[in-house]
This record gives sequence, structure tokens and C-alpha cells, in this order.
Amino acid sequence: MQTDTDTDTDTDTDTITGTSLTTDSISVARRRSAELEEQIRRDPGRFRVLTGDRPTGPLHLGHYFGTLRNRVRLQDAGVETFVLVADYQVLTDRDVAERQAEIVEELLLDYLAIGIDPERSTVFTHSAIPALNQLLLPFLSLVSVAELQRNPTVKDEIAHSRQSAVSGLMFTYPVHQAADILFCKANLVPVGQDQLPHLEVTRTVARRFDERYGPVFPVPDALLSEAPLLLGTDGTKMSKSRGNAISLSATADETAKLIKGAKTDAERRITYDPDHRPEVSSLVLLAALCEGGDPRAVAEEIGDGGAAALKRRVTEAVNTFMAPLRARRSDYAADRTYLRKVLHQGNERATAVAEATLTEVRQAMGTLY
Amino acid sequence: MQTDTDTDTDTDTDTITGTSLTTDSISVARRRSAELEEQIRRDPGRFRVLTGDRPTGPLHLGHYFGTLRNRVRLQDAGVETFVLVADYQVLTDRDVAERQAEIVEELLLDYLAIGIDPERSTVFTHSAIPALNQLLLPFLSLVSVAELQRNPTVKDEIAHSRQSAVSGLMFTYPVHQAADILFCKANLVPVGQDQLPHLEVTRTVARRFDERYGPVFPVPDALLSEAPLLLGTDGTKMSKSRGNAISLSATADETAKLIKGAKTDAERRITYDPDHRPEVSSLVLLAALCEGGDPRAVAEEIGDGGAAALKRRVTEAVNTFMAPLRARRSDYAADRTYLRKVLHQGNERATAVAEATLTEVRQAMGTLY
Repeated sequence: MQTDTDTDTDTDTDTITGTSLTTDSISVARRRSAELEEQIRRDPGRFRVLTGDRPTGPLHLGHYFGTLRNRVRLQDAGVETFVLVADYQVLTDRDVAERQAEIVEELLLDYLAIGIDPERSTVFTHSAIPALNQLLLPFLSLVSVAELQRNPTVKDEIAHSRQSAVSGLMFTYPVHQAADILFCKANLVPVGQDQLPHLEVTRTVARRFDERYGPVFPVPDALLSEAPLLLGTDGTKMSKSRGNAISLSATADETAKLIKGAKTDAERRITYDPDHRPEVSSLVLLAALCEGGDPRAVAEEIGDGGAAALKRRVTEAVNTFMAPLRARRSDYAADRTYLRKVLHQGNERATAVAEATLTEVRQAMGTLY
Repeated sequence: MQTDTDTDTDTDTDTITGTSLTTDSISVARRRSAELEEQIRRDPGRFRVLTGDRPTGPLHLGHYFGTLRNRVRLQDAGVETFVLVADYQVLTDRDVAERQAEIVEELLLDYLAIGIDPERSTVFTHSAIPALNQLLLPFLSLVSVAELQRNPTVKDEIAHSRQSAVSGLMFTYPVHQAADILFCKANLVPVGQDQLPHLEVTRTVARRFDERYGPVFPVPDALLSEAPLLLGTDGTKMSKSRGNAISLSATADETAKLIKGAKTDAERRITYDPDHRPEVSSLVLLAALCEGGDPRAVAEEIGDGGAAALKRRVTEAVNTFMAPLRARRSDYAADRTYLRKVLHQGNERATAVAEATLTEVRQAMGTLY
């Protein structure tokens, strides 16, 4: 296990960011991420990654090109990877209890289909790891209510719900996330730019714990990943609830149908111009991502072929790209016993890691009697 | 295990009390407690009690006559009893990490000395029971931030600390307490009047959980116990930090010295008049409690003997009363291996109970995969 990370280049102060991120802090995070990528190339064994998803429904191509692909890349580069199914954090804004087991199973199928390898990556549900969840208690003692209120994502959540609907779970979510990350002493967390403030809470918790009780936790680094801007087929944000996303579980026919109905524009000539032609450009980009090519070249090739040619090209690209993924997915779907085994093994491994960390925490805090 | 309780007489609504208790709600709680006492007499096996202490230092006679005695009474009446050492809840306002293990050991000695019987009562530290602590997560989803802010005890804590010093742990304390009570499905919680709002949070959590996910938890009842008004030897509130309390670990000499230095008043004739002569009356009451007599009769007997005679009587009464307790305490103190065994057995038993409850909870929530 690798728990060290370069904290000497770390200039952050011991406060939880109260405001949105500045351009400056983002460019700092970008430079740091570039350094980290270089270190991963040289010595992947130094790193342990925590990533994961809230199990709220099927994953789609937006997730794939946004985060999942990067996750598999890190695993394949030799970085030890923990993949969290954050099944308590779906209680914060949805009531999915009736379908929870089914959603988690589909999520596992998606993971296996895209190349998450349960021999190299530990896939686990945090509800199955009591020793992880216990860390919430000491961590809550290290963060003030005022800090929790200032967290921009929490503020945002509060702004979008009725005040009375903000649960204690949602309010303490960044601290539970610290437990998710620190239980396995992850030192690297792949995040989008909007999640940087969340990770800052984890970094603060790690720092404060170590200052107060002695060195137990690494201060994890953010690995910023740029998600390509893929829109849904209706031109709005891709979202499973809007029915505008190509899910990883979609068949070739379903995919063709979705793309056929995609919104385009009246201009015949196909160009790649995300600012002025967002819908068309998103389709071009999707084809390019699936083909591993450049969106400008794809647009050039289609030229005056118009929306129909574009859609044929995208359908072909997506279905070709998805074919091996779908094949793997349906193989795994036929073997539910194996699926359960994957999760049980992941949970067992995560439990062993969490129990070891909790013992260290209790030792440091003087609560091992 | 007895998890039923008479909830049909329960007229509470599903809200967490936002204001201090009314005289009315206290008299309701008193009547209910009288009924419960009657039921305990008839059928103690129907009840499971959760009681406990925050391990912040030695217990004293104020604790003894206020709560500990009642705890032993319930145990001896045949009520199954869980005794919680709330070692995470000392992080909310103190930094006692360095001395935590020693404080817990002294607390165990106090318990054994007063007659807590580890064969009949389960003594445990909540930091050792991850499955208990995990319950905090689903429970937090059932309580809103607004409700947590309205809880009078939390308000009080916030008023007495700097706002920035209120930690997430203190803020969520009533919900953690719900986990402490509900993990073992306690249906009876002995409380003082000021703790009624806290228990109301537990009752609300139990009710909401059961409504949302199906019946798992009993809605526990408060068993109101009237604590006799014992003052410290300086006439102020009895408190270990003020050095005005006779701790259960004090020797006969230390006790005599403390009583000798106790504050009295200039009037020679000893009377029992708590309103007008609080210091003298507290001493009279202490003698009466130790002798199992009536404070008015004690005062009468001392009559014109003055403060010196009163103090001799109190010293004699306390030391006679404490003698067997001290003997047991020093026997147990000589056998640290036994002490550790008591705690380990208690923690094992509590863990088994917590794991069974957590499995039911995960089953009900659909998170057993």
C-alpha cells in the first residue's frame, strides 16, 4: 500500500474553501495534475485511487468518456484502484430503496463491461463496510458546522431543494466522502473541476486528524480530468432521467433509434463548432471519441453529407465501439453468481482495509482499550 | 429480546420538538413513567434499557443518587440493560484523547463498584461497535438540518460555545444518540427532564424509519427519574471539575476532608429547607440518602447541634454507605485483566446485537446484495 504523496508542494491553508473556485486555483490544480500524470507513468505503484458512483441508474456514454474511461486507464497503468458504489448517498435526494439491488447489479455489469477488472480493482458498496462508516464520527469532530454550511456544493444542493428538505445526510455528505476516500488511504482522487471543493474537505480532515492525533492519513491529491462536452440527443445536458443518453446497456437498435432522433440544425454542411453548433458538434465529437479520431477531421469527412450522413456515421461509430463492450456485458449478465461474487470479494477486501485503518485511528485517538 | 412497547397511548406527532418542554408535556411524561414502572414490576422481561455516560472523568455521588442507583435498580428488577460508554461523544467538547483509556477504566470500576453486573448488563464503548455507528448514516437521512438546528440541547450547546466551535459531531449528536439507543432496540431510556427533547429525536427517527422502510425499531419510552437536588460542597452545582464532588473513588479520608470544608450557614439550628438554606439542606439530604431515611427526620435529630454535628453525621453516613462500594472497587482495581475482560465481553455482545440490527436495516432498505 502506498500512502505517501508529495505534500511539500502543497501550499493550501488549513481551511475549507468557502467560495467557488478561482481560475487561479483551477490552474494550480491543472499543473499539479500534469505532474501527477508524469509520476503515474514513472511509478504507478506509488498511488492508490478512490473513484466511484452513486447508484442512481444506468451509466451512459457521457459517464464513459467523462470518467469511466479514465478509471480503467489508471487501473491498466498499474495504479491500485478502489471503486465505490456510494449506496448511502442516494438517500440524500432520492428514494430508490425498492430498486436498489437491481441498480447496483446493473452498475456492476457496466463496470465489468468497460474493463474494470475485479482482480486489480476493489469494487465495493459503502453500506457493507461498517468500519468505513464509523470514520464519519471522528471526522465530524474535525469540521465545524460553519464550514459545512460554506461548502459550495452543499450550498448549491440547499439552494436547489427546499431548506427543510436538506437532510442531515446531505449536510454531512462531504465528511462521509472523506471517510470513503481515507478509509483506504487513497492518495489520488480523479475529479472534475466542480468537485475540487469537496475534495478540499477530505484534505482538511486528513490534515487535521494527523495534526491532532498523529500521522495516519495521506492528504490525497486531485487528479483533474477534462470531460469532453457531450450533450444528450435532445441538445440538453445528458441525463438518464431525460431519456437523451445512450446508456452502456443500450442495444445497437436502441442506440440507432436514439441517434436517429437526435436534434441537429438546418445547415447542411457539417462542421465542428461547439460554441455555435452545439448539437451537431456533440454528435461529431461522439463519433470522434468512439473512433479515436479528431472531431474536426470527422466533420471534414462528412462535409456536405448533412445530418443524415452525420447520424449514419455516429451510429456506426458508436455501435462498432460498443460491440465488444456489449458482448462482455451480456456474458456477465448471464452469470449472476459471478456478479455477486465480485461484489462480495470487493466488500471483503474493502472491509479488511477499513478495519485496519479503523484500528489505527482508534489507536491514535486512544480509544483501543 | 423485547422490542414491543405500548405505542397506542402515544399521542406525539412526527416532529422533533422545536421549543423547550412545556409543563404539560412533562406531566404527560411523568404519568407515562408511572405506568411504565408498574409494567416493569409486573413483567420486567418486556423491557430493554439503554443507559450510559460520556467518559469525561470519575463519577460522583451526584451521579450515583441521580442516575446510577436507578440503573442498578432496573437491572436488579430483571430488565435487560445496556450500559454505554459514549467515548466518541467526548470529542464534542473536550480533548481527552491522552487520558481516554484511563478514564474508561475508572468508569468501569465505578460501574462494578455500584453493582452493575456484567453477567446481566452489557457494558460497551460505542467506538468499538462499527455496526452501531453505521446506523448514523441512514438515520441522518431521516432528519433535516432545520430540525437539528431547532433541537434545544444543540441550541444550548451552540449558545455556550463559539458558533465556529460547534463541530459536525456536536451538531449531529442527537442522531448518533438515536443509533446508540436503537442499535439494541432499547424500548426504555431512563432520562432526566432536560433530556426529553433528545429522546424525542430518537423516537422520531425510529418512527420515520419504520414508516419508510418497514418495522424494525421500537419507539422507545422515556422513563423519567427525579434526581435529588444535591449540591457540591461549595454550594454550587456538583461537578468534578470544580473539586466540590465526592467521587465514587474517593477514600474515607478524602471524603471526610471534603465534607469538613463544606459550605454551611450561620444558623445553628439544622433544618431541611432547600429553598432558603440550600447548602445545609443538601448536606442533610446527602446523609438521608445514604442512610435511606427522611431528610426532615435527619435535620430534626441534629437539631441544635449546628454545622459541626451535621458534618459529623454526613461524614459517618457517607463513609458507612460507601464502605462496601469502596471494598468492591478496590477488589476490582486489583484485577485489570478482569476489567478488560468485562469490556471485551460487553463489546462482543453489543457487536453481535448491532450486526443483527444492521442486517435488518440493510434488508429493509434494500442494500443487502
